[in-house]
Amino acid sequence: MSVTINGERLLERLAALAEIGAIEGGGVCRLAFSAADKNGRDQVKRWMLDLGLTVREDTIGNVIGRLEGQDSTLTAVMMGSHIDTVRTGGHLDGTLGVLAGLEVAQACVDAGFKPLRSLEVGFFSNEEGSRFSPDMMGSLVYTGGLSLGDALSKPDVEGLTVAQAMHKWQVGGAAPTPGEIPYAFIELHIEQGPILERENQRIGVVTAVQGISWKRLVLHGQSNHAGTAPMSLRSDAGLVAAQITVALRDLVLEMGQDMVGTVGKLLVSPNLVNVVPNRVEMTIDLRAPVESTLKEAEARFEACVTQLCAAEGVSVEWESLVRLKPVSLDAKVVDLIAQLAQEKQLPYRRMVSGAGHDAQMFAGVTAAGIIFVPSIGGISHNINEATKPADITAGCQLLGDTVLALAASC
Amino acid sequence: MSVTINGERLLERLAALAEIGAIEGGGVCRLAFSAADKNGRDQVKRWMLDLGLTVREDTIGNVIGRLEGQDSTLTAVMMGSHIDTVRTGGHLDGTLGVLAGLEVAQACVDAGFKPLRSLEVGFFSNEEGSRFSPDMMGSLVYTGGLSLGDALSKPDVEGLTVAQAMHKWQVGGAAPTPGEIPYAFIELHIEQGPILERENQRIGVVTAVQGISWKRLVLHGQSNHAGTAPMSLRSDAGLVAAQITVALRDLVLEMGQDMVGTVGKLLVSPNLVNVVPNRVEMTIDLRAPVESTLKEAEARFEACVTQLCAAEGVSVEWESLVRLKPVSLDAKVVDLIAQLAQEKQLPYRRMVSGAGHDAQMFAGVTAAGIIFVPSIGGISHNINEATKPADITAGCQLLGDTVLALAASC
Repeated sequence: MSVTINGERLLERLAALAEIGAIEGGGVCRLAFSAADKNGRDQVKRWMLDLGLTVREDTIGNVIGRLEGQDSTLTAVMMGSHIDTVRTGGHLDGTLGVLAGLEVAQACVDAGFKPLRSLEVGFFSNEEGSRFSPDMMGSLVYTGGLSLGDALSKPDVEGLTVAQAMHKWQVGGAAPTPGEIPYAFIELHIEQGPILERENQRIGVVTAVQGISWKRLVLHGQSNHAGTAPMSLRSDAGLVAAQITVALRDLVLEMGQDMVGTVGKLLVSPNLVNVVPNRVEMTIDLRAPVESTLKEAEARFEACVTQLCAAEGVSVEWESLVRLKPVSLDAKVVDLIAQLAQEKQLPYRRMVSGAGHDAQMFAGVTAAGIIFVPSIGGISHNINEATKPADITAGCQLLGDTVLALAASC
Repeated sequence: MSVTINGERLLERLAALAEIGAIEGGGVCRLAFSAADKNGRDQVKRWMLDLGLTVREDTIGNVIGRLEGQDSTLTAVMMGSHIDTVRTGGHLDGTLGVLAGLEVAQACVDAGFKPLRSLEVGFFSNEEGSRFSPDMMGSLVYTGGLSLGDALSKPDVEGLTVAQAMHKWQVGGAAPTPGEIPYAFIELHIEQGPILERENQRIGVVTAVQGISWKRLVLHGQSNHAGTAPMSLRSDAGLVAAQITVALRDLVLEMGQDMVGTVGKLLVSPNLVNVVPNRVEMTIDLRAPVESTLKEAEARFEACVTQLCAAEGVSVEWESLVRLKPVSLDAKVVDLIAQLAQEKQLPYRRMVSGAGHDAQMFAGVTAAGIIFVPSIGGISHNINEATKPADITAGCQLLGDTVLALAASC
């Protein structure tokens, strides 16, 4: 049994929500626990209530709407994502998974169809982490990975805590955290990368979320006059930073396996045309879909940095900024999504997600899956973020098919 | 015939001049045409006049003190350097060549010795170029390489021109520019590099001044999410900047010949840990002692950059910031200095100067030479700039021996 979702209605809701916190050029700014976030929350809650869902809001501000199933004693199948955005975000990142979930629920209501298990649609607080660290905060607290107290005490750059920001905008309710663990959790999300578009695929069936290793390196060399210091007597921190950047690319290409590595941030001192740099601060972003691969890459990279520094007489300080293990999504859910995509003759591929998503927090406690739809030009976290309407509709329908299949099992 | 210089007296004058514009920790700030520069000028002029020298000041503020020789119809042998400093400079850069010249003149006066040719001691305006471009402005105008009008119209960062700054502090006199070209020009200077100290040499006999090629490159790639953009679909401007930095080092090492190459400045955009850089601005400082070598290096470097950019799908803008041809110093003067050093049993080496000096402007119009003394730790343009007193004395004596040998020839 399935129901047919209404793509037009979904697109209308996406457009309506994009008005809240809209920025020039079509983008959205709804930082977590801001005025715009509050307005977005109220809008989505209104839609949930209008639809007759039972809405609960928990102590970290996660909001869950529930469509009661035939057997209320069975755990629910949950859909969801987030509605907060980065500072110059698009209108689909997160929002799509929430409003597509709402559309699936509405399609059931409209069809007078009551699944065996209850359906739930949630949006989780502060997924982006643009204002408060860590990201995916709401789903982390919901699934018991972070205590409520710890989360509430996190400050933004102005020193305002999550608790204070929630109080200011009257966000948060009485539902307890950690929350009730659902039977399964399925998230529809835009890819935020170029792979599906390049390969003319319409669906990405996510098998794993990359583990993330962020490091900050500070290299200390010696500043010297660029004219009078012979090459053989230099300790050029800028050169070593460059060698490290090249070595990271080489390592990642050599190891392959969907790994990615990036030097995104680099600050050179004294940063003058005729002075050999004596200090470089740089960041390393290394991701791999399997923990053993990530560990091996980290170890090989560290050995390489040590060797490069020694050769140039440069010392190095290491700091780990973020370390998340890779997450494997539920094999049965992955197979189910792939099978349903095939039945609908949607070109799909299995793939690894390079970005983090709320579903990965659920993967540790229940059967979780992620469905990707293509991002035009691979663009995301950008006001030009877009997906073809037909892909949005197809993704929503596949989400519905998947959760109804899951909700039918006892 | 020679005279014996008084090292104590030289050190006292160096210490006295270091008081003018003194900054905390022992450094000096006497930016060109500033109040401190004016006070320094007055002090050195007073010393010249006290010694009985004839002092002239030209239209760009260069000051020359003259000790009349036996034959006034012969052109003079000139010594000199500059007394302006960088913002956080030391007490020897430039000043040593001026005050050592003064000491040589005084030693002649004290000994009652009158050389055949007149001796001149000069200090040239705005050698450092820290406030007004170009550097070596005074010697450039003196030797006819830059018109007075052009020099006077150069602005500082606040828009004040050289003419306005000179007027404010009453710097500049009636002597015409270009000035009278001397028979020879000899400059004593600190090495500002580590070579002499590392090799236990006490004197550097400079054979050439490096040609300088400064370029600014702007690389344009594409910003991407560091997690979702596969390595094969990236146009990483940061990676290409790193590859260019490494390639420059490789090229310079391969070509050898006293060449040096430096990437001193690097600005990455958007400079975030998890975003592939889409823009890098970087500078290249390339120096070689021979023009053909510098040209070859520039051509090979450009080809290399073109190739690296193409491979990553990154575009590049080039801008030439500075281009100075290498300068060869007079072979006879070089040999004379080397021979006199050997006679005094001073360990010396012939070497290339990586930094620019006033003498190089004279090299185009007369016989010019530069004598280096060691810099402790190779440090310069720094408040900790220092040279052993014995090396200062030895350098000054060698300067005296050299100019008196030249002044004896008709």
